[in-house]
Amino acid sequence: MMDDQNRAQIILRLKSTAGHIQGIVRMLEEDRYCIDIIKQIQAAQAALSRTSEAILETHLHTCVTTAIRGDDSDERERVLSEISEVFRHTNKSL
Amino acid sequence: MMDDQNRAQIILRLKSTAGHIQGIVRMLEEDRYCIDIIKQIQAAQAALSRTSEAILETHLHTCVTTAIRGDDSDERERVLSEISEVFRHTNKSL
Amino acid sequence: MMDDQNRAQIILRLKSTAGHIQGIVRMLEEDRYCIDIIKQIQAAQAALSRTSEAILETHLHTCVTTAIRGDDSDERERVLSEISEVFRHTNKSL
Amino acid sequence: MMDDQNRAQIILRLKSTAGHIQGIVRMLEEDRYCIDIIKQIQAAQAALSRTSEAILETHLHTCVTTAIRGDDSDERERVLSEISEVFRHTNKSL
Repeated sequence: MMDDQNRAQIILRLKSTAGHIQGIVRMLEEDRYCIDIIKQIQAAQAALSRTSEAILETHLHTCVTTAIRGDDSDERERVLSEISEVFRHTNKSL
Repeated sequence: MMDDQNRAQIILRLKSTAGHIQGIVRMLEEDRYCIDIIKQIQAAQAALSRTSEAILETHLHTCVTTAIRGDDSDERERVLSEISEVFRHTNKSL
Repeated sequence: MMDDQNRAQIILRLKSTAGHIQGIVRMLEEDRYCIDIIKQIQAAQAALSRTSEAILETHLHTCVTTAIRGDDSDERERVLSEISEVFRHTNKSL
Repeated sequence: MMDDQNRAQIILRLKSTAGHIQGIVRMLEEDRYCIDIIKQIQAAQAALSRTSEAILETHLHTCVTTAIRGDDSDERERVLSEISEVFRHTNKSL
Protein backbone atom coordinates (compact mmCIF):
# COMPACT_ATOMS: atom_id res chain seq x y z
CA MET A 1 0.00 0.00 0.00
CA MET A 2 3.09 2.15 0.46
CA ASP A 3 4.57 3.74 -2.65
CA ASP A 4 8.11 2.73 -3.59
CA GLN A 5 9.80 6.01 -2.70
CA ASN A 6 8.17 6.09 0.71
CA ARG A 7 9.12 2.47 1.39
CA ALA A 8 12.71 3.08 0.28
CA GLN A 9 13.03 6.01 2.70
CA ILE A 10 11.64 4.01 5.61
CA ILE A 11 13.98 1.10 4.84
CA LEU A 12 16.94 3.51 4.80
CA ARG A 13 15.93 4.90 8.20
CA LEU A 14 15.60 1.44 9.74
CA LYS A 15 18.99 0.35 8.34
CA SER A 16 20.49 3.51 9.78
CA THR A 17 18.98 2.69 13.20
CA ALA A 18 20.31 -0.89 13.02
CA GLY A 19 23.75 0.61 12.28
CA HIS A 20 23.33 3.00 15.21
CA ILE A 21 22.69 0.04 17.50
CA GLN A 22 25.82 -1.73 16.21
CA GLY A 23 27.65 1.47 17.18
CA ILE A 24 26.19 1.23 20.69
CA VAL A 25 27.53 -2.35 20.90
CA ARG A 26 31.00 -0.94 20.14
CA MET A 27 30.56 1.66 22.91
CA LEU A 28 29.92 -1.21 25.34
CA GLU A 29 32.94 -3.17 24.06
CA GLU A 30 35.08 -0.05 24.59
CA ASP A 31 33.67 0.28 28.16
CA ARG A 32 32.28 3.75 27.51
CA TYR A 33 30.41 5.70 30.20
CA CYS A 34 26.97 4.19 31.01
CA ILE A 35 25.09 7.48 30.76
CA ASP A 36 26.50 8.15 27.26
CA ILE A 37 25.35 4.67 26.20
CA ILE A 38 21.85 5.22 27.65
CA LYS A 39 21.59 8.53 25.74
CA GLN A 40 22.45 6.76 22.47
CA ILE A 41 19.83 4.08 23.18
CA GLN A 42 17.26 6.85 23.78
CA ALA A 43 18.27 8.44 20.45
CA ALA A 44 17.77 5.10 18.66
CA GLN A 45 14.32 4.79 20.28
CA ALA A 46 13.40 8.30 19.10
CA ALA A 47 14.45 7.38 15.55
CA LEU A 48 12.22 4.29 15.70
CA SER A 49 9.34 6.50 16.91
CA ARG A 50 9.77 8.78 13.91
CA THR A 51 9.80 5.74 11.62
CA SER A 52 6.59 4.28 13.05
CA GLU A 53 4.95 7.72 12.76
CA ALA A 54 5.86 7.87 9.06
CA ILE A 55 4.41 4.37 8.54
CA LEU A 56 1.21 5.26 10.42
CA GLU A 57 0.80 8.42 8.36
CA THR A 58 1.04 6.42 5.14
CA HIS A 59 -1.33 3.81 6.53
CA LEU A 60 -3.96 6.44 7.41
CA HIS A 61 -3.86 7.86 3.88
CA THR A 62 -4.05 4.46 2.16
CA CYS A 63 -5.60 1.41 3.88
CA VAL A 64 -7.57 3.35 6.50
CA THR A 65 -9.04 5.84 4.02
CA THR A 66 -9.93 3.06 1.56
CA ALA A 67 -11.58 0.95 4.26
CA ILE A 68 -13.57 3.80 5.77
CA ARG A 69 -14.78 4.96 2.36
CA GLY A 70 -15.75 1.36 1.55
CA ASP A 71 -19.00 -0.48 2.19
CA ASP A 72 -17.70 -3.21 4.49
CA SER A 73 -18.58 -2.10 8.00
CA ASP A 74 -16.53 -4.92 9.62
CA GLU A 75 -13.48 -3.75 7.70
CA ARG A 76 -14.10 -0.14 8.80
CA GLU A 77 -14.34 -1.29 12.40
CA ARG A 78 -11.18 -3.35 12.04
CA VAL A 79 -8.98 -0.49 10.77
CA LEU A 80 -10.32 1.90 13.44
CA SER A 81 -9.72 -0.56 16.26
CA GLU A 82 -6.16 -1.09 15.00
CA ILE A 83 -5.52 2.67 15.20
CA SER A 84 -6.93 2.72 18.74
CA GLU A 85 -4.71 -0.21 19.70
CA VAL A 86 -1.55 1.39 18.28
CA PHE A 87 -2.39 4.60 20.18
CA ARG A 88 -3.04 2.66 23.40
CA HIS A 89 0.27 0.85 23.06
CA THR A 90 2.16 4.09 22.48
CA ASN A 91 0.35 5.64 25.41
CA LYS A 92 1.56 2.61 27.37
CA SER A 93 -1.65 1.98 29.21
CA LEU A 94 -2.14 -1.40 27.52
CA MET B 1 -20.21 14.26 18.53
CA MET B 2 -19.94 12.20 21.69
CA ASP B 3 -23.15 10.61 22.95
CA ASP B 4 -24.36 11.65 26.40
CA GLN B 5 -23.57 8.41 28.20
CA ASN B 6 -20.04 8.33 26.84
CA ARG B 7 -19.48 11.99 27.78
CA ALA B 8 -20.85 11.42 31.30
CA GLN B 9 -18.42 8.53 31.84
CA ILE B 10 -15.44 10.54 30.64
CA ILE B 11 -16.42 13.48 32.87
CA LEU B 12 -16.65 11.11 35.85
CA ARG B 13 -13.17 9.75 35.13
CA LEU B 14 -11.66 13.22 34.86
CA LYS B 15 -13.33 14.35 38.11
CA SER B 16 -11.96 11.23 39.78
CA THR B 17 -8.45 12.08 38.52
CA ALA B 18 -8.77 15.68 39.77
CA GLY B 19 -9.76 14.22 43.18
CA HIS B 20 -6.77 11.85 43.02
CA ILE B 21 -4.47 14.85 42.49
CA GLN B 22 -6.03 16.63 45.50
CA GLY B 23 -5.17 13.49 47.46
CA ILE B 24 -1.55 13.76 46.26
CA VAL B 25 -1.49 17.36 47.55
CA ARG B 26 -2.48 16.00 50.98
CA MET B 27 0.33 13.43 50.78
CA LEU B 28 2.77 16.33 50.28
CA GLU B 29 1.24 18.31 53.17
CA GLU B 30 1.66 15.23 55.39
CA ASP B 31 5.32 14.94 54.26
CA ARG B 32 4.84 11.44 52.87
CA TYR B 33 7.68 9.51 51.24
CA CYS B 34 8.72 10.98 47.84
CA ILE B 35 8.67 7.65 46.00
CA ASP B 36 5.09 6.95 47.16
CA ILE B 37 4.06 10.41 45.88
CA ILE B 38 5.78 9.81 42.51
CA LYS B 39 3.94 6.48 42.15
CA GLN B 40 0.60 8.22 42.75
CA ILE B 41 1.46 10.87 40.13
CA GLN B 42 2.28 8.07 37.67
CA ALA B 43 -1.09 6.43 38.45
CA ALA B 44 -2.89 9.75 37.76
CA GLN B 45 -1.02 10.03 34.43
CA ALA B 46 -2.06 6.49 33.49
CA ALA B 47 -5.70 7.37 34.26
CA LEU B 48 -5.42 10.43 31.99
CA SER B 49 -3.96 8.19 29.24
CA ARG B 50 -6.96 5.88 29.47
CA THR B 51 -9.29 8.90 29.29
CA SER B 52 -7.64 10.31 26.16
CA GLU B 53 -7.76 6.85 24.56
CA ALA B 54 -11.51 6.67 25.19
CA ILE B 55 -11.96 10.13 23.65
CA LEU B 56 -9.83 9.21 20.61
CA GLU B 57 -11.82 6.02 20.09
CA THR B 58 -15.07 7.99 20.05
CA HIS B 59 -13.54 10.59 17.76
CA LEU B 60 -12.42 7.92 15.25
CA HIS B 61 -15.94 6.45 15.10
CA THR B 62 -17.69 9.83 14.74
CA CYS B 63 -15.91 12.87 13.26
CA VAL B 64 -13.11 10.94 11.52
CA THR B 65 -15.44 8.40 9.92
CA THR B 66 -17.85 11.13 8.80
CA ALA B 67 -15.06 13.26 7.32
CA ILE B 68 -13.36 10.39 5.49
CA ARG B 69 -16.66 9.17 4.03
CA GLY B 70 -17.47 12.75 2.96
CA ASP B 71 -16.58 14.54 -0.27
CA ASP B 72 -14.44 17.34 1.17
CA SER B 73 -10.83 16.27 0.58
CA ASP B 74 -9.43 19.13 2.71
CA GLU B 75 -11.55 17.97 5.61
CA ARG B 76 -10.36 14.37 5.14
CA GLU B 77 -6.77 15.57 5.14
CA ARG B 78 -7.39 17.67 8.26
CA VAL B 79 -8.79 14.82 10.39
CA LEU B 80 -6.00 12.46 9.29
CA SER B 81 -3.26 14.96 10.05
CA GLU B 82 -4.79 15.53 13.52
CA ILE B 83 -4.60 11.78 14.22
CA SER B 84 -0.96 11.76 13.09
CA GLU B 85 -0.20 14.73 15.33
CA VAL B 86 -1.84 13.16 18.39
CA PHE B 87 0.14 9.97 17.75
CA ARG B 88 3.40 11.94 17.32
CA HIS B 89 2.78 13.78 20.57
CA THR B 90 2.08 10.56 22.45
CA ASN B 91 5.15 9.00 20.89
CA LYS B 92 6.97 12.06 22.21
CA SER B 93 9.11 12.66 19.18
CA LEU B 94 7.45 16.05 18.53
CA MET C 1 12.82 15.48 53.60
CA MET C 2 11.69 18.22 51.27
CA ASP C 3 12.26 21.80 52.42
CA ASP C 4 9.18 23.98 52.90
CA GLN C 5 9.70 26.23 49.89
CA ASN C 6 10.19 23.29 47.56
CA ARG C 7 7.10 21.54 48.96
CA ALA C 8 5.01 24.72 48.61
CA GLN C 9 5.98 25.03 44.93
CA ILE C 10 5.14 21.41 44.18
CA ILE C 11 1.77 21.74 45.93
CA LEU C 12 1.01 24.87 43.84
CA ARG C 13 1.83 23.00 40.64
CA LEU C 14 -0.40 20.05 41.57
CA LYS C 15 -3.29 22.36 42.50
CA SER C 16 -2.85 24.11 39.17
CA THR C 17 -3.00 20.75 37.36
CA ALA C 18 -6.16 19.76 39.30
CA GLY C 19 -7.67 23.09 38.18
CA HIS C 20 -6.58 22.39 34.60
CA ILE C 21 -8.44 19.07 34.71
CA GLN C 22 -11.59 20.81 36.03
CA GLY C 23 -11.26 23.06 32.98
CA ILE C 24 -11.12 19.97 30.73
CA VAL C 25 -14.36 18.77 32.37
CA ARG C 26 -15.96 22.07 31.31
CA MET C 27 -14.68 21.56 27.75
CA LEU C 28 -16.52 18.23 27.69
CA GLU C 29 -19.69 19.78 29.14
CA GLU C 30 -19.54 22.42 26.38
CA ASP C 31 -19.10 19.65 23.75
CA ARG C 32 -15.78 21.01 22.54
CA TYR C 33 -13.80 19.32 19.75
CA CYS C 34 -12.31 15.94 20.82
CA ILE C 35 -8.82 16.68 19.51
CA ASP C 36 -8.65 19.95 21.50
CA ILE C 37 -9.67 18.03 24.63
CA ILE C 38 -7.02 15.35 24.00
CA LYS C 39 -4.35 18.06 23.61
CA GLN C 40 -5.34 19.56 26.98
CA ILE C 41 -5.15 16.12 28.61
CA GLN C 42 -1.65 15.68 27.13
CA ALA C 43 -0.67 19.10 28.53
CA ALA C 44 -1.90 18.07 32.00
CA GLN C 45 0.13 14.85 31.74
CA ALA C 46 3.25 16.84 30.80
CA ALA C 47 2.71 19.09 33.85
CA LEU C 48 2.49 15.99 36.07
CA SER C 49 5.73 14.70 34.50
CA ARG C 50 7.52 17.93 35.40
CA THR C 51 6.16 17.67 38.96
CA SER C 52 7.38 14.10 39.45
CA GLU C 53 10.78 15.10 38.04
CA ALA C 54 11.05 17.90 40.60
CA ILE C 55 10.14 15.46 43.39
CA LEU C 56 12.66 12.88 42.17
CA GLU C 57 15.39 15.50 42.00
CA THR C 58 14.74 16.48 45.62
CA HIS C 59 14.60 12.83 46.64
CA LEU C 60 18.00 12.11 45.01
CA HIS C 61 19.62 14.98 46.90
CA THR C 62 18.08 14.10 50.26
CA CYS C 63 17.00 10.53 51.09
CA VAL C 64 19.06 8.81 48.39
CA THR C 65 22.26 10.69 49.19
CA THR C 66 21.83 10.11 52.94
CA ALA C 67 21.16 6.38 52.46
CA ILE C 68 24.06 5.80 50.08
CA ARG C 69 26.49 7.67 52.34
CA GLY C 70 25.20 5.68 55.32
CA ASP C 71 26.39 2.33 56.66
CA ASP C 72 23.20 0.32 56.19
CA SER C 73 23.71 -1.71 53.00
CA ASP C 74 20.07 -2.88 52.93
CA GLU C 75 18.93 0.73 53.02
CA ARG C 76 21.35 1.62 50.19
CA GLU C 77 19.97 -1.26 48.12
CA ARG C 78 16.40 -0.20 48.86
CA VAL C 79 16.78 3.39 47.66
CA LEU C 80 18.62 2.29 44.51
CA SER C 81 16.01 -0.32 43.63
CA GLU C 82 13.29 2.32 44.07
CA ILE C 83 15.06 4.59 41.57
CA SER C 84 15.31 1.67 39.12
CA GLU C 85 11.63 0.91 39.58
CA VAL C 86 10.54 4.52 39.00
CA PHE C 87 12.69 4.60 35.85
CA ARG C 88 11.26 1.27 34.64
CA HIS C 89 7.73 2.53 35.19
CA THR C 90 8.42 5.76 33.30
CA ASN C 91 10.06 3.76 30.54
CA LYS C 92 6.83 1.74 30.50
CA SER C 93 8.43 -1.63 30.17
CA LEU C 94 7.10 -2.76 33.57
CA MET D 1 32.48 -0.18 35.60
CA MET D 2 30.28 -2.96 34.33
CA ASP D 3 31.42 -6.53 35.03
CA ASP D 4 32.16 -8.73 32.03
CA GLN D 5 29.14 -11.03 32.36
CA ASN D 6 26.76 -8.10 32.62
CA ARG D 7 28.35 -6.37 29.62
CA ALA D 8 28.21 -9.59 27.55
CA GLN D 9 24.47 -9.95 28.27
CA ILE D 10 23.74 -6.35 27.31
CA ILE D 11 25.75 -6.71 24.08
CA LEU D 12 23.77 -9.87 23.22
CA ARG D 13 20.49 -8.03 23.77
CA LEU D 14 21.53 -5.11 21.57
CA LYS D 15 22.72 -7.44 18.79
CA SER D 16 19.39 -9.24 19.00
CA THR D 17 17.54 -5.90 18.67
CA ALA D 18 19.69 -4.93 15.65
CA GLY D 19 18.74 -8.30 14.11
CA HIS D 20 15.09 -7.64 14.93
CA ILE D 21 15.29 -4.34 13.02
CA GLN D 22 16.86 -6.10 10.02
CA GLY D 23 13.82 -8.40 10.14
CA ILE D 24 11.53 -5.35 10.07
CA VAL D 25 13.39 -4.16 6.94
CA ARG D 26 12.51 -7.50 5.31
CA MET D 27 8.85 -7.02 6.32
CA LEU D 28 8.89 -3.71 4.42
CA GLU D 29 10.58 -5.30 1.39
CA GLU D 30 7.86 -7.97 1.37
CA ASP D 31 5.17 -5.24 1.58
CA ARG D 32 3.73 -6.59 4.82
CA TYR D 33 0.78 -4.90 6.54
CA CYS D 34 1.68 -1.49 8.07
CA ILE D 35 0.14 -2.21 11.47
CA ASP D 36 2.15 -5.44 11.83
CA ILE D 37 5.31 -3.49 11.02
CA ILE D 38 4.45 -0.78 13.58
CA LYS D 39 3.90 -3.46 16.25
CA GLN D 40 7.35 -4.92 15.55
CA ILE D 41 8.92 -1.45 15.81
CA GLN D 42 7.16 -0.98 19.17
CA ALA D 43 8.53 -4.37 20.32
CA ALA D 44 12.08 -3.30 19.33
CA GLN D 45 11.62 -0.06 21.30
CA ALA D 46 10.46 -2.02 24.36
CA ALA D 47 13.57 -4.23 24.10
CA LEU D 48 15.76 -1.10 23.99
CA SER D 49 13.94 0.22 27.09
CA ARG D 50 14.74 -2.97 28.97
CA THR D 51 18.38 -2.69 27.89
CA SER D 52 18.74 0.91 29.08
CA GLU D 53 17.09 -0.07 32.38
CA ALA D 54 19.66 -2.82 32.89
CA ILE D 55 22.48 -0.36 32.15
CA LEU D 56 21.03 2.25 34.54
CA GLU D 57 20.70 -0.36 37.28
CA THR D 58 24.37 -1.29 36.92
CA HIS D 59 25.34 2.38 36.81
CA LEU D 60 23.46 3.12 40.06
CA HIS D 61 25.26 0.28 41.86
CA THR D 62 28.72 1.22 40.58
CA CYS D 63 29.57 4.79 39.50
CA VAL D 64 26.69 6.48 41.33
CA THR D 65 27.28 4.66 44.61
CA THR D 66 31.04 5.29 44.44
CA ALA D 67 30.57 8.99 43.68
CA ILE D 68 27.98 9.57 46.39
CA ARG D 69 30.07 7.77 49.00
CA GLY D 70 33.11 9.81 47.93
CA ASP D 71 34.31 13.18 49.15
CA ASP D 72 34.05 15.13 45.91
CA SER D 73 30.80 17.12 46.15
CA ASP D 74 31.00 18.24 42.49
CA GLU D 75 31.22 14.63 41.41
CA ARG D 76 28.23 13.72 43.63
CA GLU D 77 26.24 16.56 42.07
CA ARG D 78 27.26 15.47 38.58
CA VAL D 79 26.07 11.86 38.92
CA LEU D 80 22.79 12.95 40.51
CA SER D 81 22.06 15.50 37.80
CA GLU D 82 22.74 12.84 35.14
CA ILE D 83 20.15 10.55 36.76
CA SER D 84 17.66 13.44 36.80
CA GLU D 85 18.37 14.16 33.14
CA VAL D 86 17.93 10.51 32.07
CA PHE D 87 14.62 10.42 33.98
CA ARG D 88 13.49 13.70 32.41
CA HIS D 89 14.30 12.40 28.94
CA THR D 90 12.40 9.16 29.54
CA ASN D 91 9.51 11.14 30.94
CA LYS D 92 9.69 13.12 27.71
CA SER D 93 9.17 16.52 29.22
CA LEU D 94 12.64 17.67 28.15
